[in-house]
Amino acid sequence: MQAELVIIGTELLLGEIVDTNAQFLARGLANCGINLYYKSTVGDNWVRIVETISRALSRSELVIISGGLGPTEDDLTRAAVAAVTNRTLELDVEALDTIEAYFRKRYGDRSMPPNNRKQAYLPTGAVVIPNRWGTAPGFILELSRSAIVALPGVPAELEPMFTATVLPYLQQKFRGEVFVTRNLSFTGIGESSLEELVKDIIQSQTNPTVAPYASQGVVRIRITARAATPEEGEALIDPVATMIAERTQPYLFSTTGQVLEEVIGERLTSAGWTLALAESCTGGLVGHRITNVPGSSRYFLRGYVVYSNEAKAADLGVKQATLAQYGAVSRETAAEMAEGVRAAAGADFGLAITGIAGPDGGTAEKPVGLVYIALASQGDTIVERHYFSGSRMQIKQRSAQAALTLLWKSVR
Amino acid sequence: MQAELVIIGTELLLGEIVDTNAQFLARGLANCGINLYYKSTVGDNWVRIVETISRALSRSELVIISGGLGPTEDDLTRAAVAAVTNRTLELDVEALDTIEAYFRKRYGDRSMPPNNRKQAYLPTGAVVIPNRWGTAPGFILELSRSAIVALPGVPAELEPMFTATVLPYLQQKFRGEVFVTRNLSFTGIGESSLEELVKDIIQSQTNPTVAPYASQGVVRIRITARAATPEEGEALIDPVATMIAERTQPYLFSTTGQVLEEVIGERLTSAGWTLALAESCTGGLVGHRITNVPGSSRYFLRGYVVYSNEAKAADLGVKQATLAQYGAVSRETAAEMAEGVRAAAGADFGLAITGIAGPDGGTAEKPVGLVYIALASQGDTIVERHYFSGSRMQIKQRSAQAALTLLWKSVR
Repeated sequence: MQAELVIIGTELLLGEIVDTNAQFLARGLANCGINLYYKSTVGDNWVRIVETISRALSRSELVIISGGLGPTEDDLTRAAVAAVTNRTLELDVEALDTIEAYFRKRYGDRSMPPNNRKQAYLPTGAVVIPNRWGTAPGFILELSRSAIVALPGVPAELEPMFTATVLPYLQQKFRGEVFVTRNLSFTGIGESSLEELVKDIIQSQTNPTVAPYASQGVVRIRITARAATPEEGEALIDPVATMIAERTQPYLFSTTGQVLEEVIGERLTSAGWTLALAESCTGGLVGHRITNVPGSSRYFLRGYVVYSNEAKAADLGVKQATLAQYGAVSRETAAEMAEGVRAAAGADFGLAITGIAGPDGGTAEKPVGLVYIALASQGDTIVERHYFSGSRMQIKQRSAQAALTLLWKSVR
Repeated sequence: MQAELVIIGTELLLGEIVDTNAQFLARGLANCGINLYYKSTVGDNWVRIVETISRALSRSELVIISGGLGPTEDDLTRAAVAAVTNRTLELDVEALDTIEAYFRKRYGDRSMPPNNRKQAYLPTGAVVIPNRWGTAPGFILELSRSAIVALPGVPAELEPMFTATVLPYLQQKFRGEVFVTRNLSFTGIGESSLEELVKDIIQSQTNPTVAPYASQGVVRIRITARAATPEEGEALIDPVATMIAERTQPYLFSTTGQVLEEVIGERLTSAGWTLALAESCTGGLVGHRITNVPGSSRYFLRGYVVYSNEAKAADLGVKQATLAQYGAVSRETAAEMAEGVRAAAGADFGLAITGIAGPDGGTAEKPVGLVYIALASQGDTIVERHYFSGSRMQIKQRSAQAALTLLWKSVR
């Protein structure tokens, strides 16, 4: 079962909006076990729309079109589908009723603009997809070897219409094989080093398939199985996931798609441990990530953003002698920050970050990107030295990730 | 001049990520006056990648490819471009040097994984696009009637590479009409209210065009002029920008694309004022945003993340009686937090946020989304009460934005 998306709208080609429909539809199809092989975006141009829909129909069994169903001159989808499939446009009475009802409900007595009547003309044989969230009806057109689904481009209309009408239609029509996916999430290792560890597994597998990828700062391995049922898919995935987990154990923090701060939060909660933070170069980012987790107030006692030496001394008790002898960015200061914040908050763990995020402030001895991370716990303080490249924002993000990784390793 | 994008990555067809590169590239091309006619997305599949690049080359003079330049087996772009253009892959010494330098800088003595060497093989005749932000070099390949530009799929690499190398290349190659764009940025007003204020201007303009839009939490008005030179474009924009600014003055914080925290930073720096933060429900996000600005250590003295009542009392001197009588989320506590943090840090401004980010912890009297923001300065404390809707993350983000807006209004 091979599907493809045709996204219509000049505004997407001008970069005026991010195309969230494509992601929504892609995820919906993946959840039905339908393979999405192509996504094409074209502007509101007759020749290019007709060309793109024709090609899609020639190679895919399911073509989902979004956009171009509005009432204006620019809205060409209905006519283009009719042209490509050698049909005419006919007034669909059910569609017209729905549009008129929408106008009555929304505007009371004000009558429907004549333009909107155009939206009720559908290719012969099409079945209307009701739109209770706006004026543009969608439609499903079944052909001998394929099907076209057309939806309006407004996400607030497309999304509920897909869920209410298209999803049940697809599940009924294309019942059969499902795709089951499991994501393993890693920290403290890069994508290519991770791939080296499991290269033979990637190459030897066909069902499930195994693919490493990086997105939004997290390195993941995606395991995808084709099967008759979700249970069979999971059973195919289990032994491969176990094999990968055995080799990657020092870096593997989740097999359920959780983010690192959620995994840490669960661990702290179940052990009854508490946390305090002292951030210099990350400026509050670690606290922000920790507190993105609902319920983090149970274990996160407090945080200090200590940008100045005065703050490091006053709030955390870092010794003036340490700052003078080793500097604010040093192994010794990091350790005193972690121990100081742990004591000040009365927490089980004190986590501290001090470094140079740049772009200024670096020296030959202490360049931009040098970051010390310290974790103090009862009777023990670990300090790590890192050297990160990138922009100020990337150095902050990499420092925060490294700090959470150190914490995770200590509480896992 | 007709361009087209080819976006490569199975993760996009699975709906795992939103494709922000497409928008970034589309906007960049529009600003150069280059027409983007097609955007095609395919997975990491040899046959479909080759087919899609071939078609793009057959109909467009400029083909920009993103993704598929990584070090793994799945990364097929280099080989596919070579196949489509009948070239071989050759080791590019400059590209290899850059990758090795990146690894040395990032990991010191740890040697480069052998996989990454693959990234330095480019189609014969290609010119490398340096990547200082990651391992994957891009390339430009000029053909007799067209050009291919290949960039890595990671936005943090693609975006600076496009700006540093591709944009100047395109501007030089495809000189002609230019598009000049100016963005006015607003805070404290929604997109549709802003549109109402300037509706007649939007409707009466053709060159420049005026369009409101919202992206990444900032409401903007984009003014775009077509002209023969950048100077002519700016001259067309000036009177329209002035007219809009006059009507929207209470909300307009930048006409140069700066973010709010940069504008605040410049103002604090030039006035010689200092800032301290006390964050409860935002958990460090305000500190993170403030410290994203290079040089923020000049005015940002320190921050406290005071999740617990103990921390509010110990670090900020919030009175136990206040907490007991009014609660942690109250006008009175917010004011004492702001005054307390100002005094503790010896800062000119103390900014405090306390609220309920949810999803739990709300009551009928104090529901999720209730947030107090206080700003203490010499002899004056302002408190604002907000009620935000949305997820925990959205409430944190809206609270941070409102806090920075309050600060901006006081220092502008």
